[in-house]
Amino acid sequence: MNTRRLFIKKAGGSVALATMNPALMLANPAQSSSRTGEDLFKLGIAGYSFVNFKLDQALDMMKKTDVHYLCIKDFHLPYNSTAEQISQFHETLKKADVTGYGVGPIYMKTNQEIDNAFDYARRVGVKLIVGVPNPEVLPYVEKKVKEYDMRYAIHIHGPDIKLWPNASSVIDAIKSLDPRMGLCFDMGHDTRFGDDATADLEKYAKRIFDIHLKNVTAASKEGKTCELSRGVIDIPAFVNMLRKVKYDGVCSLEYEKDMKDPLAGIAESIGYFKGVCDASRQGRRKA
Amino acid sequence: MNTRRLFIKKAGGSVALATMNPALMLANPAQSSSRTGEDLFKLGIAGYSFVNFKLDQALDMMKKTDVHYLCIKDFHLPYNSTAEQISQFHETLKKADVTGYGVGPIYMKTNQEIDNAFDYARRVGVKLIVGVPNPEVLPYVEKKVKEYDMRYAIHIHGPDIKLWPNASSVIDAIKSLDPRMGLCFDMGHDTRFGDDATADLEKYAKRIFDIHLKNVTAASKEGKTCELSRGVIDIPAFVNMLRKVKYDGVCSLEYEKDMKDPLAGIAESIGYFKGVCDASRQGRRKA
Repeated sequence: MNTRRLFIKKAGGSVALATMNPALMLANPAQSSSRTGEDLFKLGIAGYSFVNFKLDQALDMMKKTDVHYLCIKDFHLPYNSTAEQISQFHETLKKADVTGYGVGPIYMKTNQEIDNAFDYARRVGVKLIVGVPNPEVLPYVEKKVKEYDMRYAIHIHGPDIKLWPNASSVIDAIKSLDPRMGLCFDMGHDTRFGDDATADLEKYAKRIFDIHLKNVTAASKEGKTCELSRGVIDIPAFVNMLRKVKYDGVCSLEYEKDMKDPLAGIAESIGYFKGVCDASRQGRRKA
Repeated sequence: MNTRRLFIKKAGGSVALATMNPALMLANPAQSSSRTGEDLFKLGIAGYSFVNFKLDQALDMMKKTDVHYLCIKDFHLPYNSTAEQISQFHETLKKADVTGYGVGPIYMKTNQEIDNAFDYARRVGVKLIVGVPNPEVLPYVEKKVKEYDMRYAIHIHGPDIKLWPNASSVIDAIKSLDPRMGLCFDMGHDTRFGDDATADLEKYAKRIFDIHLKNVTAASKEGKTCELSRGVIDIPAFVNMLRKVKYDGVCSLEYEKDMKDPLAGIAESIGYFKGVCDASRQGRRKA
């Protein structure tokens, strides 16, 4: 009961209280102990990693790699799902000891699409939307953020598309808006744009609500997602910064290599992240 | 040519010079740059991890996990292999960018079995035999070690069998014998016997010629192999000790969980080891 009260207090709005899914609330990352030792941040997987797999297959891979947080993509839970389908979805996740902590990325070009997305998130029972809004609809997004008391994290996509290529492009657009407007920090795309992901994590920490954990083969448009252990980003430095800025969200591996047979790469990446966390935590203790 | 000369000098014996496979010599771990950053030790896989797989399948898993050293088991290269079959085997490994750096474990109860094993190692072209000798044949093993100028690493097996349960049982038996007699340090079995694997690594470093890298679920007979990231052994502390004692052999993952479908567990373990190495190396630089 205490944990529920705590969460309601944290959520801070009556809309949240009225519409949260109680089953989900108990499993919310804000309440459960961290799965990464003493760290505030959690390790998860971004649903897009499983674009070629059904939910059961995705959860089987999460079980094999011992990961417990999932950012929900619509191909696993369609936008038009009924209350019963949503409830069934959460039941399936619960059996796999997985918490769906947010939804998205969702592209939003119109007010109607924004309405739909916030209504979907409310029905799913999460407080975090990862979105890709057209710049002109940002004022309407802010209105909805206030109304629903949700956090809205804009996903960045590197040099591939002009819309939100890097962290600073998002920060510039939302810095004067509601503090619940922020960033889904795709550290791979930020790097591919030519920016320093670890420096940006420090600079924009207050507005970073979600992280797409990944590594890339080059700090340029040509860079491709690779195993976390094999890219140009210094992951130990990034993890040290996660701790320095006290990031308490999820680091969700978005694995976009070998997407039809991703298990080995996901497992190696998850292992690498855990190894970095364990070794650098020990280093801190000694220091 | 310099590298070949260096190796021959290191090997130190004329038998070695006469019988080494030149193709293998070039790919010998003693000569190639470390695959684990600046560290002296190399990361490999113990052949037994692939007991349910043919060589091609094993090499495919090594390719997927980017591992380049293999301790050769007889089910991949039978003891009675012809020179042509051995040559073919090395060719196959070379194509996969893998070096077979040793053979075994091989059980040896009689002088005849010892003769066979040393002859096999010579024909395969390696300088390291991982063996499980009956205690009474140790003097004959020592004789062969001198004759062939090979290193002989006795494998330990924890509380499961009485023969060589832990590191100290081997050290007690070989400490007054030739310095090329030593230990294949199975850190999992040593832990399952109730000993401190990291302390033993420090204590017996000079006699440790090979390591079976693994973690276990408990420091007792009930403990089973698990992903390197999930067991009771403090892997970051172990890696720090590898560096402190300047271990320059191979750490070969012996993965004995899910042996019919081991890829995810192998990948997670390899990733974890690399993560620990990278993060603690960075920690050392800062210190």
